[in-house]
Amino acid sequence: MTETVIGRRALLGTALAASAFAAATTSACQAPQAKTDSERSMTRSRELAHEMLQVDGNGRDLTLTYLKTLIDTGLPKTDAPKRIIVIGAGPAGLTAANLLADAGHRVTVLEANANRTGGRVKTFRGIFSDPALYAEAGAMRLPSAHPLVLALADTLGVRRRQFHNTDVQPGAPAANLVPVRYRSFTGEQWSNGPETECRRPAAAGRTLIKVNGHLVTRADYDADPAGIHTGFGADLTAPTRRALDIAMHRVEVPADLPIDRRIDGWTNIFNRYEDYSTHRYLMERGWPLPHIEAVGTLENLTSRLHYGVIPALVDHALIRPDATYWELEGGTATLTDALTDRLGPAVLRGKRMTRVEQTDGGVKVWTTAESGHERSDGAPIDPIESFDADYAIVAIPLTSARFCTFDPPLSYAKRRAITELHHDAATKVLLEFKTRFWEQGPAGFRGGGCVSDCPNRFIYFPSHVTDSDGGVVLASYTWSDDAMRWDSLTEGERLHFALGGMRDMFGPRVDAEFTGVGISQSWQRARYALGEAVIPTPGQLHEHHAATRTVEGRLHFAGDHTSLKPAWIEGALESAVRTALEIHTR
Amino acid sequence: MTETVIGRRALLGTALAASAFAAATTSACQAPQAKTDSERSMTRSRELAHEMLQVDGNGRDLTLTYLKTLIDTGLPKTDAPKRIIVIGAGPAGLTAANLLADAGHRVTVLEANANRTGGRVKTFRGIFSDPALYAEAGAMRLPSAHPLVLALADTLGVRRRQFHNTDVQPGAPAANLVPVRYRSFTGEQWSNGPETECRRPAAAGRTLIKVNGHLVTRADYDADPAGIHTGFGADLTAPTRRALDIAMHRVEVPADLPIDRRIDGWTNIFNRYEDYSTHRYLMERGWPLPHIEAVGTLENLTSRLHYGVIPALVDHALIRPDATYWELEGGTATLTDALTDRLGPAVLRGKRMTRVEQTDGGVKVWTTAESGHERSDGAPIDPIESFDADYAIVAIPLTSARFCTFDPPLSYAKRRAITELHHDAATKVLLEFKTRFWEQGPAGFRGGGCVSDCPNRFIYFPSHVTDSDGGVVLASYTWSDDAMRWDSLTEGERLHFALGGMRDMFGPRVDAEFTGVGISQSWQRARYALGEAVIPTPGQLHEHHAATRTVEGRLHFAGDHTSLKPAWIEGALESAVRTALEIHTR
Repeated sequence: MTETVIGRRALLGTALAASAFAAATTSACQAPQAKTDSERSMTRSRELAHEMLQVDGNGRDLTLTYLKTLIDTGLPKTDAPKRIIVIGAGPAGLTAANLLADAGHRVTVLEANANRTGGRVKTFRGIFSDPALYAEAGAMRLPSAHPLVLALADTLGVRRRQFHNTDVQPGAPAANLVPVRYRSFTGEQWSNGPETECRRPAAAGRTLIKVNGHLVTRADYDADPAGIHTGFGADLTAPTRRALDIAMHRVEVPADLPIDRRIDGWTNIFNRYEDYSTHRYLMERGWPLPHIEAVGTLENLTSRLHYGVIPALVDHALIRPDATYWELEGGTATLTDALTDRLGPAVLRGKRMTRVEQTDGGVKVWTTAESGHERSDGAPIDPIESFDADYAIVAIPLTSARFCTFDPPLSYAKRRAITELHHDAATKVLLEFKTRFWEQGPAGFRGGGCVSDCPNRFIYFPSHVTDSDGGVVLASYTWSDDAMRWDSLTEGERLHFALGGMRDMFGPRVDAEFTGVGISQSWQRARYALGEAVIPTPGQLHEHHAATRTVEGRLHFAGDHTSLKPAWIEGALESAVRTALEIHTR
Repeated sequence: MTETVIGRRALLGTALAASAFAAATTSACQAPQAKTDSERSMTRSRELAHEMLQVDGNGRDLTLTYLKTLIDTGLPKTDAPKRIIVIGAGPAGLTAANLLADAGHRVTVLEANANRTGGRVKTFRGIFSDPALYAEAGAMRLPSAHPLVLALADTLGVRRRQFHNTDVQPGAPAANLVPVRYRSFTGEQWSNGPETECRRPAAAGRTLIKVNGHLVTRADYDADPAGIHTGFGADLTAPTRRALDIAMHRVEVPADLPIDRRIDGWTNIFNRYEDYSTHRYLMERGWPLPHIEAVGTLENLTSRLHYGVIPALVDHALIRPDATYWELEGGTATLTDALTDRLGPAVLRGKRMTRVEQTDGGVKVWTTAESGHERSDGAPIDPIESFDADYAIVAIPLTSARFCTFDPPLSYAKRRAITELHHDAATKVLLEFKTRFWEQGPAGFRGGGCVSDCPNRFIYFPSHVTDSDGGVVLASYTWSDDAMRWDSLTEGERLHFALGGMRDMFGPRVDAEFTGVGISQSWQRARYALGEAVIPTPGQLHEHHAATRTVEGRLHFAGDHTSLKPAWIEGALESAVRTALEIHTR
């Protein structure tokens, strides 16, 4: 009853042997146990540190390379066009497709969704009672620390403006648009415009915190956190954001050190804390439980305490707590729309990949129709199609690859990553209101977010609304177990309870202001996404991260999950340039 | 902007002060920090050890007490009947309601489901093409180590028979029914019938394991695990079940020690390993990663590696790897049906609790209709009703309490437990086949389960089918992240991919054998359950477990999540007897 063995050792005998062996010699648990466990862990940690700091094998700055490739030069024109299939029209797939098509390759993008592209970039448009309004189901803010996505938006003519992560006074003048600037560790600077001082309105701190029945403004809380902290039995004197900042900052490597020392420092962090959850990290920092509870509730950490601490440390180091953010006029989907438009008929919607076959000569991608196409004579066409190419970029979430067939099978390490890497839940409930009542009166505020221990947890307000008296509020934004509670409910229940949470904070006027229109987005329940993004559990970064991006024969792998910036468009774009270069140069 | 504070300290000033204070003085992080952290941890650990071993404060055996109350005597008859509302008609709520009603109290059970009781006991009946067939959406096996549920089934006249957790030869004679026997640490024995030797068919070991493209029978694997282990790069010589057994057993306390030493031993385990995930535990036992990967895949551990190790140790100690299991003729729901029938009109379906108010004199429970009731004159009745009582038992999952309003609010500790205790996902896909083809031929087997690294992961076969040539296979049984992948799919996709996984193992004959009828159950997506069961993450047992069961004024809390046997009916029954006693004696 024994069939062909395709485990890691047997794989070395197949046609994929060369690349698999190359990967095996540098990755834990793939090669015969030549190195000790601790040597392997240090090697893996150093690779992760390089990737986090975007330093390539020759000490060059990958971010600079990617900026120049994506924004300034594109890929060199090819004189030997390759046929390339890109599977998945999210930011990663669309950007890679644009780069390769611009270089002269013959590119086809296959997208499962029949009616849109963008992946987890998704703007709800045309569904609210005021057609001028829109709201984000997915990515909604772009940090200044992410030059690729900001510069790409500028290049495509998609206008950006400041996203108020913290609220401002309603009448405050808008922040000015400043060019994208990136300062490399090499000393080189990259910018897409002249040096401009950023003028932005001051934070007002009028958004609300309501926990344990105690309601205060953010400013009042910052000035005197004790009242709120007492509700948790915590005697923390600093605001929780500051306390968490200090706890994370304590082990981080100062960004102004020479790059070699930063690499060494982060190598040690990746090595030392790989098996730590955030819970264990804070416990071993000596935090008493009430501190963890207070910080967990106020800083959206509780439901992620059991995940690895490294992703939290990396995120904290790469996007400082005082970061500024941008948003795109018309919604984040204007970016992926623009990328889609440039590709024209190369983007085929409603084609869900089910199977990929590789031979010595090429790849064949099988799809099933998702849109109920029919022939004009009324006879249904076979919904199964196949597409041939020289190479393919798999730019779908790992989770969705779990239900695709790969022939020959993917490597052992990739299969495990697909099966096991934890993808988190994230759910948003959006409600439309007739007026922006939260902006009114002396306590009014614009943008920013409120915090609550009710199921809503986090409530975000629009930074800018044009051409409407109303506004769409992100009435509940939850992650992990907080999101899972909402995911079990029906759409109607989500709207009902989200409005209830708004009422709990703003009183009964929310009922009169609610237009009756709302919509929710559960990324966990989205059948093409199967989750929001990778959040590794302790040990998974070392075990699986490298495998997410290894080349498998003629298949290259893109997506935010292949970067150390999961859930961020920036990570998707890094992977897009990487895979475009991989294919272009092979 | 400050409202009433209902944090833990302020609560001491309310009407609930007495009970809250009693709880606070023995629980971590509630009282002023009089004890040191390590003293609190030891106190909490000792409480957990007592609960796990079912030893009450006077050294008596709680299991014996519960058996006698539930099976032998019932509660004493009351001469002062109380009005009692039980919220939730799962095994916990139904059993508590029966005990209290039999004692003379006036009991009303409110159940959200309009068309069934049973909670996470749910048998799919009447939906397969052969009406004689049924299959379990929820609880499917009752271990011999769980005397309450087995004896309750016997008492109610619900017939049980052996569940073949491991497959047997198709022609093997059925195991004989043996009475329930419980041997207490006090030396006392309890039984509901004469001593009978258990005769059961030998395990055949013909079910299949297919991982990394390698297909073997269980018996072949047990005889020579190396072939399978090589696929993981693991040089484990023992079968993974044995390796895991040894790793868990190493710290466990032998069950034949005097009870005081067992309490001490388990206290130390609860204290030492509370902050350990299973991943960390195995790493610190020195397991190389390939061992963790092999055991994780074959023993259904991978997706739960980041959860606390303590629940795994407790489960392993309480239900030995060689345990025998029982199932109920006609399905597990025959048990909850029988409990429901005994209550007659006291069980009200289609009434979902939304709000509980407590006063000095009683409780008022508000419900919303879930069934679209209409008056006979056609005018819709107000779907909102209220029910008054002296006391209530809240016997719904904590997750669903997240969307209920409690006035006054529940204690700080209970609120945190409701918000934070991790509830796991579990999903089953059931497929009906025309014949039991797996029982045919020289390699045929009956019952037991197959293991695969395809999305299906675990496949279980019916132990007994009567009156049908066909059978319903549990084609995929997954937990945690494995289940989450399935949860994102549509019902149609689940059936499609589950059949694909069967085909991958048994070949194309599954397509000819499939009747076209299948059904899936995602407990995470079930809107009254919101998850399968509590699986605490590291630190959550100490932080939250005690709070799950503390009395809040006139509210008592039941359910498997209040026990150390989450997901098991036995834990629900323990909580039922406990809460019935609590209310009866107050």
